[in-house]
Order: sequence, then C-alpha cells, then structure tokens
Amino acid sequence: MTLTRRTLLASSVIPVAAPALAQTNNSMPTPQPSASAQAPGFYRYKVGDIEVTAVNDGFATRPLEGFIRNAELPAVQKAMEEAFLPKDRLPITFTTLVLRQNGRVTLIDTGNGDLGAPTSGTWMANFRAAGFDPAQVNTVVISHFHGDHINGLRLKDGTAVFPKAEIMVPANEWDFWMDETRMNQAPEGMKGAFQNVHRVFDPVAKDVKRYEADKEIVPGLTSIAAPGHTPGHTSYMLSSGAGKLMIMSDVTNHPALFVRNPDWAAVFDMDADQARQTRHRMLDMAAAERAQVAFYHAPFPATGHIAKEGSGYRFVPVQWSSAIL
Amino acid sequence: MTLTRRTLLASSVIPVAAPALAQTNNSMPTPQPSASAQAPGFYRYKVGDIEVTAVNDGFATRPLEGFIRNAELPAVQKAMEEAFLPKDRLPITFTTLVLRQNGRVTLIDTGNGDLGAPTSGTWMANFRAAGFDPAQVNTVVISHFHGDHINGLRLKDGTAVFPKAEIMVPANEWDFWMDETRMNQAPEGMKGAFQNVHRVFDPVAKDVKRYEADKEIVPGLTSIAAPGHTPGHTSYMLSSGAGKLMIMSDVTNHPALFVRNPDWAAVFDMDADQARQTRHRMLDMAAAERAQVAFYHAPFPATGHIAKEGSGYRFVPVQWSSAIL
Repeated sequence: MTLTRRTLLASSVIPVAAPALAQTNNSMPTPQPSASAQAPGFYRYKVGDIEVTAVNDGFATRPLEGFIRNAELPAVQKAMEEAFLPKDRLPITFTTLVLRQNGRVTLIDTGNGDLGAPTSGTWMANFRAAGFDPAQVNTVVISHFHGDHINGLRLKDGTAVFPKAEIMVPANEWDFWMDETRMNQAPEGMKGAFQNVHRVFDPVAKDVKRYEADKEIVPGLTSIAAPGHTPGHTSYMLSSGAGKLMIMSDVTNHPALFVRNPDWAAVFDMDADQARQTRHRMLDMAAAERAQVAFYHAPFPATGHIAKEGSGYRFVPVQWSSAIL
Repeated sequence: MTLTRRTLLASSVIPVAAPALAQTNNSMPTPQPSASAQAPGFYRYKVGDIEVTAVNDGFATRPLEGFIRNAELPAVQKAMEEAFLPKDRLPITFTTLVLRQNGRVTLIDTGNGDLGAPTSGTWMANFRAAGFDPAQVNTVVISHFHGDHINGLRLKDGTAVFPKAEIMVPANEWDFWMDETRMNQAPEGMKGAFQNVHRVFDPVAKDVKRYEADKEIVPGLTSIAAPGHTPGHTSYMLSSGAGKLMIMSDVTNHPALFVRNPDWAAVFDMDADQARQTRHRMLDMAAAERAQVAFYHAPFPATGHIAKEGSGYRFVPVQWSSAIL
C-alpha cells in the first residue's frame, strides 16, 4: 500500500521478531516469528575489505506544514507527489552503519534508543538479527549530537548500551553542546537538546575521545567537516582498496526533498546558510566522483549514488543484492 | 560497493542463513547465522486486506552485448551508467509474490528452483524465513512458462515442491507450449524450453487449472492479457478495498532499461512488437492511475510506481518500511 497519513497512523509497527542470534545458549527455545513480521532491517555491502551493515531504527513521521523554512507548502507537496510519498506527512527513517574490519566493530551513530517515536526503536532487534552483540562493539563514532543519533548510547534508565566501546565525537560538537554558559543562555526550545547531551555524555565525559576534521579516526574512516546542520556536524569518507563510501550523515534529511532541492532548509538545520553550502559542496563532490553514498535519513538501506539533474540532484538507490558486494 | 563485473564475478553468494522458522519442533538447536550473511530477501506490504510478501530468488547476470535487439550497445551502456549499474553485465533479479488472505496462501510464480544460475535459488530459504512452509500453499498462479517462473514448482529430481497446491496457468500459454506439433517443429534453440514445460507440468497435467484473461482467478486477483513476452504472458490486478497493485510479471525486464526505454526489445520477448504494445499500454495505465506496481525483474523488493518522463517512464521504488503498510 502507498504510504498515506491514514495508513501510517493506522498501522501498528510489528516489532522485528529477531531470534537472539548472538546468544550462545542453544538450549533456549527458538523464538518463532510473528507470521506477519517484516524482514529484519539490515543490509550488508562491501567497501573494499570493510564489511558495512546498514541497520535500520524504524521511522518517525513529521507534518510537512512548517518543515521547510524557505519553501511554500504546495511546492513541498509537489516534491512529495513526484516521489510517490504522502502529501501531508513525511516518514523520516533512521539508518546507522556498522563497520567490520579485521574483527573490529565500529558503529557510526546509534539511533533513537528507547527515546524516539513509537515507530522507531527497532535498532537493537535489527542489530542482533544481523548477528551482532552490543558487547562486541569496539568504537562508536558520533556524527553530531541530535537525539536520533546519540540516544542509542544510553537508555532512559541510564544504562550504557555499548559497555566496552570507545566513544568518539566531533571536538567542535562537544565544545558547543557541553558549554554551560551557552546552555544556560539557550532559548527555551533548545534547552531539552542541551540537557539530553548531558544525560548521554556526562557519565562518561572523561573517557569520550574528541576528534578533529580531516583525520583518520578509525582505520579507513576519515572525518569531513560538514557544519550547518549542527556546529560540529561531521560526514566521513570510508576507503579501503578501490572501495569508497561517502557517509553523508545529515547533510540532507529525506533525499526526495533535499537532494532534489538542495537549497531547501529543514527546520532541523541550526545554521541554514552554512548547511546549504555544505550540502552543495558534498552533493557536487558525490556527483562528480560517481561515489557511492550513505545518508542517515534516506530510505533503507540508505545507500546509493547522486546524479546531477536540473538545478538539483537525484538520489539513485543501489540495487539490493542477495550477494554481499 | 558498486556493482561491477569484477565484484559480481568475485563475490560468492552467501546463502541466506534462514533458521527453519516454520518448523514446530522447538528442541532443534537454533541455527546460528553466518556472521556475514545478507538479511533474508523478503518484504511485506498490504494491498487492502491482502498481505503481500515479495520473496527474492537471487539473481543471474547476463552480458549486455546482444541483450537488446534494437538498440546499439553504447546506448544501452549509457542507460546502465545512468542507473549506476555495470556497463558490461546486467544483474537480473527474480522476485515472486506471496498473497495471504483469510488464511489462504497464493503464490504468483515460483522462481528458478534448483535449475537457475548459481547466484539464484535462494527462494526457499527466503520463503521459510518469512514464516511460510511449502505445504501450506493453497494455490500457485503462473504468469508464463519461462523456466525462471515455473522451475520452482518441481525440483530437478522430479519432486513436487508444493504438494497440496492447486496450479493455475494461462490457458493460451498452456495451449502454446503443450502443443506436440509445435514442439517438434520448434527451432533447436527453443526445444529446451518446450521440454522444460513438459518436465514441470506432465506429471500433474490432468490437475492443472487453465484460466482465461479478465477473470478473477483467486479472490481479489484478476488476470490481464499481456502477450508478447510469451504468447500467453499474463499480468494481474490485485484489489482489496481501496488497495490496488498492478502485477506486471515480465511486461519489462530490468526497469532501468525497459521502463526508461519502453521501445527496446529484450531477446527474451518472443514477439517483440506485441510485447512493445503491451508494455506501452500497461506502463501508460500505471502512470495515469499512479498505481502501485510490482515487476518480477525489478530490483528487490520489486515494487514501486511509474512516472512519465520524456519519451519513456521512470520506475520509482517504494520507500522500505519497518511497519507493514
């Protein structure tokens, strides 16, 4: 069925019936999936020798009205219609990346944890269905400090989800959000975001490693400054052999809106002008190099390529493959 | 990694590590997935009250040279490049549909069984991963008699795969392929196809039910004559409440080539002119009605919409949803 407001509101999210695949106790009964469960939301592909697993954390819907600062609603609805998406609400999906190389597991961003929309929060079931266990994560790399990227680090009750992982964050993102004076002077609508950053990071503040732009922060993964969405928002180039993947993070929100119309500014972009410059620069580079790209908010599995088209671009999803290519 | 000839040839197909989910014997040990298995290739969506499950049967690659009768290789390569696909070989995927309504299970087409390319044959593992068992299939509807659609009915060793299912085939497809005189007079290159039809259907010939066009062959599923690809090639309209799905079968092979360029004729089309007329008629209807469509050879999950674009059309895949919409 086509996504419409009615179906989005009416449908219950069927939790992924993920057998606890990582557990080693074979005497446990095999969990039987609900007869009508969706397939687990993970997708594997290779970048050189690095195995990438896209892991989905469900979705949240957002009214279109007021979502884009500098476009009229009819223009936004037209873009939605061209993408065969609903005309009143945008389903925004969340897809993190898991990198595995030489037995080391690195996450890039963590999803909503147990603090997102009721239609999100499927990340852990999908991560386990892909054969991973949170205790085996060596490194968590964070692109920026919005809740849908960091809340998977720490549950509502305070539990650290990746107990053995080193946590790496952009240095200027840390400096912005951890500044007490700035938090105290922040407008009321921003205070929650500051408090959430403290909730997630305060208990481990002394251990968090801060990285700069243009550094190889784990083998093969180089940070790229991509400010505007937030002050320290970071993209990455993943390289191994001839393989390359541009990891865009939130350079755009949904590609059907912001890849097609790179000048449009979502309300989530803290500095709209800077975000627009970053978006043009990154999309230009991706199109010119015909590079494979990944976007946090592109439809799962959230990877594809960028083609120049008219005054904007088009996101062309990869062809799903049963073989891991 | 982007699909290239090198990666397609180099990659081994990792069999889907599907726990035998349909089995009821909980004392069996839980199968552990290979750490690097792809997610099972099934995807669920709703058409009104009918639950549709797209089940993938892997892929086969085909050299581009000589694949299209009426286009020069550079033009074909350009279309592949625009879709970020390889320039020498086309990865053709296979995706069948499973319909469930009021506890009845209907298949539309069956995949390659154990007679396809080494990169195909994943259908049964995916079907079981989706919670189905072949013994529960009530009806198998066949669109046409090419091996990648019928070979899943019967294994190489003669075993009937869906022992309790009624098998329904297009009457004119049956008449064409089961005609002894035509088989004997067929050119050498066609004899194998005739023999394969006999291999699959002879043991159950008296029980096979033949259906006409424009008939509701199972509740909600109406046959549509779509000749050209084969003489009796059939598409379908699936309807339930306000939900509709145009099931195209092989009205096109890969959408990146034949939805974009509906006048191009693949070597698989037995009557290229008739297939072209059928293709234009069906794509026109899909675009005009903004109907959701499914194609057997579109990239998994093989469902989306058709937009008019220039002298051709564009296939816009659905946004993958963790909720079953």
